[in-house]
Amino acid sequence: MASPSPSPSPSPSRLTRPPVPMKLHISNRQKLLSSLRRHLSDSSLPLHGFVFLQGGEEQTRYDTDHIELFRQESYFAYLFGVVEPGFYGAIDIASGKSILFAPRLPADYAVWLGEIKPLTYFKEKYKVSMVFYTDEIAEVLQNEYQESNKSLLFLLHGLNTDSDNYSKPAEFQGIDKFETDLTTLHPILTECRVIKSDLELALIQFANDISSEAHVEDQVGVFLLPCGDITVEMSFLNRHCSYTCICATGGNSSVLHYGHAAAPNDRTLQDGDMALLDMGAEYNFYGSDITCSFPVNGKFTSDQSLIYNAVLDAHNAVIAAMKPGVRWTDMHKLAEKIILESLRRGGILVGNVDDMMVERAGAVFMPHGLGHFLGIDTHDPGGYSKGMERPKEPGLKSLRTIRELQEGMVITVEPGCYFIDALLVPAMENSNTARFFNREAIRRFQGFGGVRIESDVHVTATGCKNLTSCPREVQEIEAVMAGAPWPPDKVSIYS
Amino acid sequence: MASPSPSPSPSPSRLTRPPVPMKLHISNRQKLLSSLRRHLSDSSLPLHGFVFLQGGEEQTRYDTDHIELFRQESYFAYLFGVVEPGFYGAIDIASGKSILFAPRLPADYAVWLGEIKPLTYFKEKYKVSMVFYTDEIAEVLQNEYQESNKSLLFLLHGLNTDSDNYSKPAEFQGIDKFETDLTTLHPILTECRVIKSDLELALIQFANDISSEAHVEDQVGVFLLPCGDITVEMSFLNRHCSYTCICATGGNSSVLHYGHAAAPNDRTLQDGDMALLDMGAEYNFYGSDITCSFPVNGKFTSDQSLIYNAVLDAHNAVIAAMKPGVRWTDMHKLAEKIILESLRRGGILVGNVDDMMVERAGAVFMPHGLGHFLGIDTHDPGGYSKGMERPKEPGLKSLRTIRELQEGMVITVEPGCYFIDALLVPAMENSNTARFFNREAIRRFQGFGGVRIESDVHVTATGCKNLTSCPREVQEIEAVMAGAPWPPDKVSIYS
Ligand SMILES: [Mn+2]
Ligand SMILES: [Mn+2]
Repeated sequence: MASPSPSPSPSPSRLTRPPVPMKLHISNRQKLLSSLRRHLSDSSLPLHGFVFLQGGEEQTRYDTDHIELFRQESYFAYLFGVVEPGFYGAIDIASGKSILFAPRLPADYAVWLGEIKPLTYFKEKYKVSMVFYTDEIAEVLQNEYQESNKSLLFLLHGLNTDSDNYSKPAEFQGIDKFETDLTTLHPILTECRVIKSDLELALIQFANDISSEAHVEDQVGVFLLPCGDITVEMSFLNRHCSYTCICATGGNSSVLHYGHAAAPNDRTLQDGDMALLDMGAEYNFYGSDITCSFPVNGKFTSDQSLIYNAVLDAHNAVIAAMKPGVRWTDMHKLAEKIILESLRRGGILVGNVDDMMVERAGAVFMPHGLGHFLGIDTHDPGGYSKGMERPKEPGLKSLRTIRELQEGMVITVEPGCYFIDALLVPAMENSNTARFFNREAIRRFQGFGGVRIESDVHVTATGCKNLTSCPREVQEIEAVMAGAPWPPDKVSIYS
Repeated sequence: MASPSPSPSPSPSRLTRPPVPMKLHISNRQKLLSSLRRHLSDSSLPLHGFVFLQGGEEQTRYDTDHIELFRQESYFAYLFGVVEPGFYGAIDIASGKSILFAPRLPADYAVWLGEIKPLTYFKEKYKVSMVFYTDEIAEVLQNEYQESNKSLLFLLHGLNTDSDNYSKPAEFQGIDKFETDLTTLHPILTECRVIKSDLELALIQFANDISSEAHVEDQVGVFLLPCGDITVEMSFLNRHCSYTCICATGGNSSVLHYGHAAAPNDRTLQDGDMALLDMGAEYNFYGSDITCSFPVNGKFTSDQSLIYNAVLDAHNAVIAAMKPGVRWTDMHKLAEKIILESLRRGGILVGNVDDMMVERAGAVFMPHGLGHFLGIDTHDPGGYSKGMERPKEPGLKSLRTIRELQEGMVITVEPGCYFIDALLVPAMENSNTARFFNREAIRRFQGFGGVRIESDVHVTATGCKNLTSCPREVQEIEAVMAGAPWPPDKVSIYS
């Protein structure tokens, strides 16, 4: 190689990528099989039929030939780990055999899109029992069922409680020859995804490690590129984000889902602004979801410390209390209470915090839920099991789960405190809550925006483990922004 | 601000963003109006009715609440410049008045997604005559037509000749009260998009300037992050790419549409590899589409120079010949011929180049078309006007346009030369073409991949102007990769 160019560059991560073992997807399938077989036995149903899923298809943008970046459908990714579009997958419930169906590619694919892989390639890559073409589905599945006239397919159909959308059951030419079951699979498979295996945890940990590092780089780099908050998206590559980055500064940080088309992360940084960066990488489908808040000029003002520490105390108290059996609604209320207490101590609120809790005043400052399951989806499914009802009260109704914690769950802890006119104005006018607000202090925080601190937390047998490792204390953030290494024991790469 | 951190960082661009004048979209509407009115007059039809378009909607990923990054539909962007989802737009053909219809947002949008803008905000932002809500469309359009019972809507419906998809005509509650015309608008509006105004050219030029700079940064940076070709995607941000980056090295560079899900830019760089980077930024909808090819170690071997110069000579000859009236098919053949001549001189091919042209041997090395219109879409529409037939011959059949050049067109010039087994093996077996190949030389280039050089070119009254400004000569690339400034007269920012 020629000698390196003299130009500076961001330092490459020294993290080593964990191997992506197909074992992970094999064990996901085994987990589903045990669970499904148990369910069928309990219902005195025969252990036969196929779990049958359709993978995602590539989409073009409107009428053009612009192909959107493909991401596999999450349930399909969970069971098969397939990265290519156009696949189907089946699992024989009796034998446990797994079958993939690959699209038959036209000959000129080899010219435009690369080598056409033989079926054996996919069998080897994805460690399944058999691979056929998608135009052979009906034939293959029927051959496996010599004994019965109509084979049974368990298709995926059910509600995503975050989007209110239903998953689309598989469709293929010849499906009318099969009996189909649309109700059994979805709740069972969703429940499998709620509890993470060690193999899954390793990937979520890695996604957290890269993302934590990228957040630290942004805190260092924010000085150097003071030309718009868009620049901080830089550490996150297109292909590897688990969701659209939220990069808000100043007043924008109180827009909870900032970063969409009408608010595209384009405000210019201003001295004195707080920044709120909500960004997470994904690795082999498994994601991270991390928020850091910090002053763009590297030094907290006392007002900024007040709000920041209110949120940090809530974040830390929740993590200290988390363990199996704890109810997530109680954790949400714990966070609210700590934030309200801090605001009262800081003179922003007045009166009795228990009274504030009764009037749901916490939801004025934190209208969103405390956190959500995290996995292959940023908002991983399963937050509401069958029969669980969504609360009606402000704040609580935004919870994406109300379940008791169980060992193996991964859930985000993301308390926040925001000054949102659309909530503050009515609350200060409402006769039940008006008395709690110190108007002068509230006026001081107009345009402040908000603070959120979000970590990804794994529930263990006896407590929990925080998978995220960003600077969190005020002094830590100020030190890192002044050039100190992170983690503190790391030798600086710049010195 | 606190003092800057000592860490290095990529240098920010010194390019100044051109203002994004709504004048551009106003003049796009005026152009459409003149053209449409002329057409109606010529057909002895009354000058009444509305041009009526539906903007794009946000999409979620499968059943989840993961919202895909929104990009406005291109025809709607052309006429109205609206960045937000969920809009409709109308233009009154008689008066020229323009009307936008904005979605009525729910009150809690203010909490989650930001301030709810009043209609006057959009009227001011997009410089239209009137703005209403989308639930008022039928009422508003009927009020404008007191004189007739049924008003006429010209809807967008027509074939995209690159994707073979049809654009989706607008739909709204109450459309059944209107007469609709599905055939008039599409060809006329598409033809407007083919010829670029000076305002459009300025944006395409800016997208080219940033992209050219980013390509140069990647050529410098490729030394520093030798951990996989994915890293070179870095200079291109998620939100600002006009298409999915193709970052291929080694043999992958002969995969023409490398970079998709099954080939995700993840090969590790190897000393001796050629890199082929096809990446373009977009700015206010208008894009760029640039390809650079270079050796990852910064020094061309003689084989690499041979192929690279064959392609560069074709690229330069085409640009030298381009002017209004020239047929694009002739430019394609010119590029083919120059490449074949170079390969013959380099001993890779043997025999008479005219004979090779008759046998379409050029398409073995360059199976894709020479270039395509560029604008709001990377493959901008209008390449085949009504009645034009796609050629059937190899290579020529891949042309996205076969039109004569006209002043104001922007078209990519992107000759390439690739060693693609799927084409070479049959061509060497075919009795018509076998004699042209020096098998030993071809064997030497197995796994070489390919070279493409792509510039964006504006056809002027008397010739053309290359909007792309990347190092192109072998010596220029080697110099830049060794640390020389680019453009050569620029004072190095690193010294
Ligand atoms: Mn989150
Ligand atoms: Mn192109």
